[in-house]
Amino acid sequence: MKFIAEVNIMPLKEILDPQGKAVTGSMKNLGLQEIHNVRVGKHITLELEAPNETVANQKVDEACRKLLANLIMESYEFELQPA
Amino acid sequence: MKFIAEVNIMPLKEILDPQGKAVTGSMKNLGLQEIHNVRVGKHITLELEAPNETVANQKVDEACRKLLANLIMESYEFELQPA
Repeated sequence: MKFIAEVNIMPLKEILDPQGKAVTGSMKNLGLQEIHNVRVGKHITLELEAPNETVANQKVDEACRKLLANLIMESYEFELQPA
Repeated sequence: MKFIAEVNIMPLKEILDPQGKAVTGSMKNLGLQEIHNVRVGKHITLELEAPNETVANQKVDEACRKLLANLIMESYEFELQPA
């Protein structure tokens, strides 16, 4: 079976997000003062082959832990759906 | 009213995504051959104040077009929810 996964990786709440801070500042310069607390992370889509959804889940989780997310600074979540 | 927006910004399908290609290659080295076609974009969360959802929608759309996304190379989508 083919699956598509959508992964979101975000800096942990406790950790400063300098890129988000910079974007928040720029919003003010653009006249969008009502926007605040911007946080910037990664959105990753991927396709995978797996015999069933449980295995697919394990594979994506492994990919997140081993490669996509830095668990010291980031958290991840993902959604799987059949392609 | 307070809203939270979740924005996804992805490289356009027609455009090469070198970061995604690199990640796809690394999956193979990690023994995750079943994962392919990785694409890497940005996930941005932000908070905003707006009188109603229509205005909030306009503001987030403006932020995406003016600052967050490069529309020549990227597409964006977002979801709004009351905070």
